[in-house]
Amino acid sequence: MAQIDPTTLTDQGNLDRLESVGTGSAMIAEIFALVSKSQFFAEFLQEDISILAGYMTVYRAQTGDILIREGDVGDFMLLIIDGEIDILKKDQRNQQQHMTSAAPGMTLGEMSMIDGEPRFATCMASQPTTFAVLTRDNMAKIILDYPGLGSKLLVKMVTMLSLRLRQTSARLLRVMEERR
Amino acid sequence: MAQIDPTTLTDQGNLDRLESVGTGSAMIAEIFALVSKSQFFAEFLQEDISILAGYMTVYRAQTGDILIREGDVGDFMLLIIDGEIDILKKDQRNQQQHMTSAAPGMTLGEMSMIDGEPRFATCMASQPTTFAVLTRDNMAKIILDYPGLGSKLLVKMVTMLSLRLRQTSARLLRVMEERR
Repeated sequence: MAQIDPTTLTDQGNLDRLESVGTGSAMIAEIFALVSKSQFFAEFLQEDISILAGYMTVYRAQTGDILIREGDVGDFMLLIIDGEIDILKKDQRNQQQHMTSAAPGMTLGEMSMIDGEPRFATCMASQPTTFAVLTRDNMAKIILDYPGLGSKLLVKMVTMLSLRLRQTSARLLRVMEERR
Repeated sequence: MAQIDPTTLTDQGNLDRLESVGTGSAMIAEIFALVSKSQFFAEFLQEDISILAGYMTVYRAQTGDILIREGDVGDFMLLIIDGEIDILKKDQRNQQQHMTSAAPGMTLGEMSMIDGEPRFATCMASQPTTFAVLTRDNMAKIILDYPGLGSKLLVKMVTMLSLRLRQTSARLLRVMEERR
């Protein structure tokens, strides 16, 4: 499975400068509380979440901290536990444009975690934010150690990416039609 | 795994009217020959492809045959073995617009296979076309029977969807910038 081969791991870039507060297991109550709000984890069993939490590391970021930088190589996804993250992307004139904001329960960075391509956008904490990180290395371990849970995670990623692709394609078609 | 629960299966819609030529195993030589050309299967082992082929059904379509209809419920993806498929989508005035064409080695329909949402676009054979179908039911069986292969398939889907989402988002941003 070339895409999640641990030997292709890079360092965690911007995370090194942030405060780590232990594995997800240490914040299991907060993570459980999120599940009902989280599109990503809504269909997971409590047991699944407990296992997953053990493979995640929790970080705290201050307002203005960059968690993911557009163009960087990165190998992790994150789940927002508390706070808010702005998604920014440079336009053709190299100006940062605010694309959207992400709230607790949402996940970011799945694309690069899986495909290893450079980060598509920058993620910046717009207020003090707590988030849990799942690296490609640990994703590979989950797939090996808990194949059923691994498949569930991957199916969920396909579902979320499909939804975003449908939304983005529909928006592109609308914009192109308006232009005609 | 709600998304691939066999009890949510629907019938195969437009496939019922096409000529079936057996399981993928009957065309294993043709499928092997495709693998080097196929973005989807490039990293799969010959052994993986042999197993997969046993879960796929091969169909032949004539020029003009609709394989997937926009808005329909559908639960399969397809791999083009030979021929060409046009991708069409209705615009706001209900006119069919040609979006792109798909060639041998390419896969179509993964989004609905996984997320069960209505088909995003119509797929029509633009010449006599042979293709192999993988249903959601059989995808679920692969995940249960061959967890390693199941994970590999899912990782591949996430990778391809990520790539398409990056391309579509970049195109949307360009179009929106041009409009400013």
